[in-house]
Amino acid sequence: MKAIGVRRDGDGPELLEKDRPTPGPGEALVRTLRVGVDGTDHEVIGGAHGGYPEGEDHMVLGHEAVGVVEEPNGTGLDEGQVVVPTVRRKPDGETNEYFRRGEPDMAPEGEYFERGIVGEHGFMAEYFTSPADFLVPVPEELAEYGLFIEPISITEKANEHAFATREPFEWRPESACVLGNGSLGLLTLWMLQQKFDRTYCVGRRDRPDPTVDIIDELGSTYIDSRETPVDEIPADHESVDYVYEATGFAPHSVQTVQALAPNGVGALLGIPEPWDFEIDGGALHNEIVLHNKCLIGTVNSHIKHFEYAVETLSEAPKWLLDDLITTVADPTDVAPAFENGDDQIKAVVEFDTL
Amino acid sequence: MKAIGVRRDGDGPELLEKDRPTPGPGEALVRTLRVGVDGTDHEVIGGAHGGYPEGEDHMVLGHEAVGVVEEPNGTGLDEGQVVVPTVRRKPDGETNEYFRRGEPDMAPEGEYFERGIVGEHGFMAEYFTSPADFLVPVPEELAEYGLFIEPISITEKANEHAFATREPFEWRPESACVLGNGSLGLLTLWMLQQKFDRTYCVGRRDRPDPTVDIIDELGSTYIDSRETPVDEIPADHESVDYVYEATGFAPHSVQTVQALAPNGVGALLGIPEPWDFEIDGGALHNEIVLHNKCLIGTVNSHIKHFEYAVETLSEAPKWLLDDLITTVADPTDVAPAFENGDDQIKAVVEFDTL
Repeated sequence: MKAIGVRRDGDGPELLEKDRPTPGPGEALVRTLRVGVDGTDHEVIGGAHGGYPEGEDHMVLGHEAVGVVEEPNGTGLDEGQVVVPTVRRKPDGETNEYFRRGEPDMAPEGEYFERGIVGEHGFMAEYFTSPADFLVPVPEELAEYGLFIEPISITEKANEHAFATREPFEWRPESACVLGNGSLGLLTLWMLQQKFDRTYCVGRRDRPDPTVDIIDELGSTYIDSRETPVDEIPADHESVDYVYEATGFAPHSVQTVQALAPNGVGALLGIPEPWDFEIDGGALHNEIVLHNKCLIGTVNSHIKHFEYAVETLSEAPKWLLDDLITTVADPTDVAPAFENGDDQIKAVVEFDTL
Repeated sequence: MKAIGVRRDGDGPELLEKDRPTPGPGEALVRTLRVGVDGTDHEVIGGAHGGYPEGEDHMVLGHEAVGVVEEPNGTGLDEGQVVVPTVRRKPDGETNEYFRRGEPDMAPEGEYFERGIVGEHGFMAEYFTSPADFLVPVPEELAEYGLFIEPISITEKANEHAFATREPFEWRPESACVLGNGSLGLLTLWMLQQKFDRTYCVGRRDRPDPTVDIIDELGSTYIDSRETPVDEIPADHESVDYVYEATGFAPHSVQTVQALAPNGVGALLGIPEPWDFEIDGGALHNEIVLHNKCLIGTVNSHIKHFEYAVETLSEAPKWLLDDLITTVADPTDVAPAFENGDDQIKAVVEFDTL
């Protein structure tokens, strides 16, 4: 079967020919429909994040997938059922407390593999197998957009964790700001618009730009961080109750505190490289304390968040999902899916259709 | 009546002669028993924090008080009832949403006064008045130690907010570390020992030292931050599930992230001055995200936390409370209460006894 992966001695994603996998006990065989490409894939390709499966000279990419059950293999799934796989897997198949509790997203480094990212092949192939416990059923009418369920699940978790921090008091948030205008940022912007009166989205692009067009279309306010750095958002717009960071730009973790309104919370999701810089650590500390602010990091997601994401996706406007998908590549000509130009929002590799 | 305060043109706390206050509608008159001195008082005295009541040339100090109702004034309180006052008050008597909800601790700057700290006289006088809604009844047998209820309430709030951040998943914390060996740190250390298997307390003192003796007596582990900086606690001891920062030393906000175990939370309570320094902002950001960590600031507390604190105080060992109180000063000779030597833990000004 065809698969897209990286080789240790290769120079980027390439078409590989592999055997169709055989499902083991408790696993189903899934025929892949579509697989999305995101920033993590680019980090994996660049070697900045993740790691190859042990003993393998290559890793199949892809962790945002949607497919159809080809062989239920006695798992209770139905043949033809549309499913989306979660990403984290037991390392070398060995379970631990986090997997037992259904919370592999809370496992520390070393206690999980991530398909297509660290330790295990991804889903960017004509077929993949997965324990049925890690496959989330999806209504057939969402199959085309099912690749968005994994990224939406990331935001479901981030929101759950961030909002839980404000539970001990009566939080009345009105405004939210998304840092980052990639596909995750834009999906999140739409999600936050359902909950907040006013939203902002920060990018570094000149108009005209397809992401800024979407921000406008959503009725949100675009902030160009070259003109208004994140810590100056309160001066130029307003201090915001919620900041969702999806840039991986390290100064944003600190600037988020200044962008927040009193009693606000900032969710951090980016994964920057080491980077030394100077901050006013006293002012940062002081501001967090005197205004009851919170910074919370979240990574990955678990089954519940995927299930919420299915709901959320079913409510998303089709124009948004269509506008987000800027490239649909064939596995035999996959290069366009890994281009990273300003006209690319979400690239998809399509293996099959329903 | 005698009062202890600071004058705009004075040079430190001094004995003032003032009129006994008259309770207004909804207020009771309280005869003061004891008032504790803490780090905030020293910041107020030094001019680093807070502000004088408008139009006044002096401010009466004191926000950790316990007293006895002298005139209930139709408020429903009983004459002779032991009470502890909360600290925040409506600015110029004007209410707002935070006071309406009973959550003045969540009010941003400008939307509250704090007795003895900002905008309103404190409790360090023979008598004070207070709205009865801001007086918390205390059992008579706790009167002597009632000055600890305000600081304990600060920790009740901090713990409530910090632990709420871990509610979305199954958190199984085992270890906690208190940064700071002042009276608040030591009280908190005892509180955390009721909940965590292993505790640590960070200070900068040579043995023999009365605070280190208390840490030992509590069965906790003393960490000298001159030998083990906070970010090296994992290397020298273990990474900890909960960090409670009560130092106001700005680098601790950043170092806390490194001291935390995966999925850990750090509560910040100190109030540092501005201070520029260099950090590895990339590593900080990355560590918060990849290990689901959280930093939460909390300030002040409200009625519920005072009520919890009464419970907590009733369970505290007497030896601890007695060891914490290193000075009991008379208002006519108050200087010893404001000395800040290594043998001082909690100083108290005693106006009366039951």
